[in-house]
Amino acid sequence: MPLTSVSDAVLAPLREALPAAAFRETTDSYLTEPRGRYRGRGTVIAPGSTEEVAAVVRACAAASVPVVPYGGGTGLVGGQVMSGDVAPVILSLERMTRVRGLWPDEGVIEVDAGCILADVQAAAADAGRLFPLSLASEGSARLGGLLATNAGGLNVLRYGNARAQCLGLEAVLADGTVWNGLSRLRKDNTGYDLRDLLIGSEGTLGIITAASLRLMPRPAAEGVAILAVESPAAALSLLALAQARVGEALSAFELIHRQGPDFLAEVGPEVRMPFAGMPEWMVLVEVGLPAGLSPADALEALFADALEAGLSDDGVIAQSEAQRAEFWALREAIPEANRRIGSISSHDISVPLSEVPAFIRAGAERLAPLGDIRINCFGHLGDGNLHYNAFPARGRSRDEYADIRETVKRTVHDLAHELGGSVSAEHGIGRLKVGDLARYGDPAKLAMMRAIKHALDPAGILNPGAMLGALTAS
Amino acid sequence: MPLTSVSDAVLAPLREALPAAAFRETTDSYLTEPRGRYRGRGTVIAPGSTEEVAAVVRACAAASVPVVPYGGGTGLVGGQVMSGDVAPVILSLERMTRVRGLWPDEGVIEVDAGCILADVQAAAADAGRLFPLSLASEGSARLGGLLATNAGGLNVLRYGNARAQCLGLEAVLADGTVWNGLSRLRKDNTGYDLRDLLIGSEGTLGIITAASLRLMPRPAAEGVAILAVESPAAALSLLALAQARVGEALSAFELIHRQGPDFLAEVGPEVRMPFAGMPEWMVLVEVGLPAGLSPADALEALFADALEAGLSDDGVIAQSEAQRAEFWALREAIPEANRRIGSISSHDISVPLSEVPAFIRAGAERLAPLGDIRINCFGHLGDGNLHYNAFPARGRSRDEYADIRETVKRTVHDLAHELGGSVSAEHGIGRLKVGDLARYGDPAKLAMMRAIKHALDPAGILNPGAMLGALTAS
Repeated sequence: MPLTSVSDAVLAPLREALPAAAFRETTDSYLTEPRGRYRGRGTVIAPGSTEEVAAVVRACAAASVPVVPYGGGTGLVGGQVMSGDVAPVILSLERMTRVRGLWPDEGVIEVDAGCILADVQAAAADAGRLFPLSLASEGSARLGGLLATNAGGLNVLRYGNARAQCLGLEAVLADGTVWNGLSRLRKDNTGYDLRDLLIGSEGTLGIITAASLRLMPRPAAEGVAILAVESPAAALSLLALAQARVGEALSAFELIHRQGPDFLAEVGPEVRMPFAGMPEWMVLVEVGLPAGLSPADALEALFADALEAGLSDDGVIAQSEAQRAEFWALREAIPEANRRIGSISSHDISVPLSEVPAFIRAGAERLAPLGDIRINCFGHLGDGNLHYNAFPARGRSRDEYADIRETVKRTVHDLAHELGGSVSAEHGIGRLKVGDLARYGDPAKLAMMRAIKHALDPAGILNPGAMLGALTAS
Repeated sequence: MPLTSVSDAVLAPLREALPAAAFRETTDSYLTEPRGRYRGRGTVIAPGSTEEVAAVVRACAAASVPVVPYGGGTGLVGGQVMSGDVAPVILSLERMTRVRGLWPDEGVIEVDAGCILADVQAAAADAGRLFPLSLASEGSARLGGLLATNAGGLNVLRYGNARAQCLGLEAVLADGTVWNGLSRLRKDNTGYDLRDLLIGSEGTLGIITAASLRLMPRPAAEGVAILAVESPAAALSLLALAQARVGEALSAFELIHRQGPDFLAEVGPEVRMPFAGMPEWMVLVEVGLPAGLSPADALEALFADALEAGLSDDGVIAQSEAQRAEFWALREAIPEANRRIGSISSHDISVPLSEVPAFIRAGAERLAPLGDIRINCFGHLGDGNLHYNAFPARGRSRDEYADIRETVKRTVHDLAHELGGSVSAEHGIGRLKVGDLARYGDPAKLAMMRAIKHALDPAGILNPGAMLGALTAS
């Protein structure tokens, strides 16, 4: 049965069954995404409970109406926006924001999928624990979306991505049945890992309605430094030094190229710069240590080692909480400056750590002949994950580069792939990278993915077009 | 097409195509398992490469011959042994033992699935890194089997189970195609998480032929203590104290009941006891700290806190590497003592941490009326994972309890389930716990599992009978 648009015939019984609050005006915010590349359509429904989510999905399944799950709307690859001829139900989790349970001694919190990340962080902190997932959009991103896209962010080096924070899920499947996979268990080897299958499936296999998450002990003390480094290779050697010195206590290791601060100076937002003259390459290093060790001492010692090894000749160590926040503000403002400049093409690639210098060198070489391009390369060096974004020359607009956009993207993605890397380290596939997945994905992997999608959502109503593109019936 | 026994018609072309070394005598060791509960049949083939594995699977697929993957043969739930009317190919990975690559600075090792765990640990150590998976059978268990069963062990508290150590897989699928999912990447959000789907699927979805694994920094210094505690509840409070004090540096937190040392005294193996008179409950605590902190000092301070809080009144802290090994030898000898005594029924349960005392209390209460039973309860308290095993009274044999075995097992498993727990925390389902999975598994989960199995192995040739039992055609 072909997919059909949501209609009054589908909505009328749902209006009877669900409270009025579930029906929202379908404002523009539900139909657009942060980078403005997609415009969707559809009708928003915001259920207040798992049972109401199930009722909506059952109604859609019966009528072959697509369901597009909607969290905070912060995804960067169009996974939350369905355009085309068929208008879906946009199923927003925004009204499901309950903390269902919190067990501080166990290090477990159970939350509705609509909880905002910052609220979960705050609930954990109030209980003396740490929920380590942290990223720029944490004030609006919701847990369901963060899990459906396996979000990454700033602390993956130490704590892993969203997947690593999750103990269990509750989800509504394509036929409207509820899978109760919530769990406070650290170990449970009873069957296939459906949790990890749904995590990162971008709403194409089920709608996540709740999650049980692990909480970590809070480090006794944290410290941050920004160190100038001569090159990406020197940054990698510094990473190895830092790991030898503090081991897993290294919580973040972020690479920053001077282009980021230059953009900040050009278009804002205004932030304080740690150096009078900014070096070409810097790393932001964060450590969180157990009681008895001083982060400032550890960072001083690391800098001394780096100086001696010729890896760094300048550095600043935060001397206060305010300065620590300032250093992070610099790093976290870069994506906003990028947005204001307007990229020709943005890339979220990862490569094996030791290939990072080769990637950065070859990227510049291959893009140079294509035009007058500024590259802002920054990101999670500790994870081998770089945001490698191409921008217009100063005074020119991204529109002037429209004809080379695809070539730029292809050039960067081909290079990452050649080096054993990924063309989407943390942002996912969504609708933006469907072609990349088809191009770079292992054929056996793609075949398995299609078989699984067909097995769990035979009518193809869950987020059609995302991740796998237009599925032909198999 | 119904499954058929391996025959000369299938073997003859394989004998042509594969080197003679791939054909082994099918000795008893391939047909039995450690607890002697199953006896299998079949013909052993030991391919030397992924391509040879694929050739064997293609031949079996064409003839509907079952394939049972075989690693070190150490599994405790019969996943490696197929009995019944149809004789499978027993596909042993024992000849695939190559370390394919090692990148110490990246913290990555890539190994054939037949590598023995202890060899991978040693390769990591030689490179100044740690491969943290550690369990009693590490001298014979192979990586493919450890991943296929998502093995746990002694360091899950700090480092996670086998799944958490794995960056990528190579596997041969049911139709003989090779999925190349090996990866040195820490972050890669391009598609469904097939890696985690195969991990823990016990050979029912594909044959793991190689894995890329993450290596960790080695802690600068490690220390071990055994502390007497008054009760499981006191042990839990001590765990919280230890986490507050050293955070993630806590690498192991093992509960030991006096029954374990009593069994060791009764039947061996001979080990040194840390206390003159053994307390009823003990915990073995291990910490691994960054440079600048002394494990002995940290453990001293923890003991002082515990003494003051009334949680422990006796303890010994290892003063040397030899003593540290001695403490671990006590813990690790307990399973062998159990084997010599011979259990009525063994259980590998997990419950939410705060339910551990209730589980232990109610378990004893519910088993007492069933007969004169000795309970040896020990295990990975930090993970909420207990090996809760029932034994005959002294001087009696397990055969005398044959009539209550099922009731004992059911009683323990019902209790774990009631408390939100799992009936297989780390050993898996295999053939032993197929009924438990059907009984306790969420119906939506079971339906998803069957759909996935049918999608990826429609003929049902991969390890038939394991995990899902006899699948009816769907």
